[in-house]
Amino acid sequence: MEKVTIVVHSGDLDKFMSALIIGNGFLSMGDEVTLYFTFWGLQRLVKGKLSKAPLSRMNFLGLGAWMMRKKMKKANVAPLERLMADFKALGGRVIACEMTMEVMGISRNALDESLIDQFGGVGMYVNETKQGQKALFI
Amino acid sequence: MEKVTIVVHSGDLDKFMSALIIGNGFLSMGDEVTLYFTFWGLQRLVKGKLSKAPLSRMNFLGLGAWMMRKKMKKANVAPLERLMADFKALGGRVIACEMTMEVMGISRNALDESLIDQFGGVGMYVNETKQGQKALFI
Amino acid sequence: MEKVTIVVHSGDLDKFMSALIIGNGFLSMGDEVTLYFTFWGLQRLVKGKLSKAPLSRMNFLGLGAWMMRKKMKKANVAPLERLMADFKALGGRVIACEMTMEVMGISRNALDESLIDQFGGVGMYVNETKQGQKALFI
Repeated sequence: MEKVTIVVHSGDLDKFMSALIIGNGFLSMGDEVTLYFTFWGLQRLVKGKLSKAPLSRMNFLGLGAWMMRKKMKKANVAPLERLMADFKALGGRVIACEMTMEVMGISRNALDESLIDQFGGVGMYVNETKQGQKALFI
Repeated sequence: MEKVTIVVHSGDLDKFMSALIIGNGFLSMGDEVTLYFTFWGLQRLVKGKLSKAPLSRMNFLGLGAWMMRKKMKKANVAPLERLMADFKALGGRVIACEMTMEVMGISRNALDESLIDQFGGVGMYVNETKQGQKALFI
Repeated sequence: MEKVTIVVHSGDLDKFMSALIIGNGFLSMGDEVTLYFTFWGLQRLVKGKLSKAPLSRMNFLGLGAWMMRKKMKKANVAPLERLMADFKALGGRVIACEMTMEVMGISRNALDESLIDQFGGVGMYVNETKQGQKALFI
């Protein structure tokens, strides 16, 4: 059994999805996973924002993210809301970066607190990561 | 000897190049390397697309990628096609993400299959990564 | 005690800040940290460029980075110049990627050499990383 820590810095649909799919993949194999949400990644945990992620590469007229969601649905890939719910159900741990909240002016109230296990700073992240075997930054 | 797994999510010239240079660096030291291509990274393995990677930072008039290729040539840095061929020749392993193929509508036929060792999902990625000591997401 | 290696590929304010905050976090816990600066990350070490980092997500009229700096100040988060100075003071190690210097035409003279401990290629990066327990790519 391993412990994996992933910094979710990006709030883009494709990268956020990768973070959750990788996280859920490890959880499904019996590993422990902590996601540490910062910057645009944390912004995605503001109530109602999970379904609004853009793509990391520009597409003309902004059709990119809409199109990818449509294709995800057709390919039976779960949307972010579902991937996030699965992550929690499989026992994954979510930490919200307190510094990001201050810098970006995000209050606890604005965040979907049902998704968050703990609020913490870089010290908490470093501790989690040192207990683990693998660390990713997405 | 270590085993390194790199998720190649980005298809940008500079990041894709970094992934291959790091991969080839480990292979040259006798380590094992698996590249797991997803999203824009996998799109780059569609026939004829390796030489068309854009830069991750915008440059006016799109001159950026063209200019960097010119400077790479002048600095004797191998182009992506060559870095990829070296990766294969040094014994590196390439996995193509099946979910990306479905979501982005990329058929096996469209991909340059000579570059790919295996097609697989997140389970295969997690297994590879757990066998290894280091994991990067690029 | 662990040893952590971080490739700083991005020169964006938010990602560069994350790299330094994570680096300083590990150093504060008594760990060893090596930052390997490549591409846009290395460009940020050119004299006078630390204070000019843009944001990784576009904001209309370029107000984004200016606004974030203002909010960082208000939230008592140190600017990049200070985070970098702290990193050096805490004993962090900085390697500048020689290949990037050639490809991007950056001379030693142009770089703020007071920040750099060593100049090296991918071989040096791989060696550092193999001596360590954790590796990130930012």
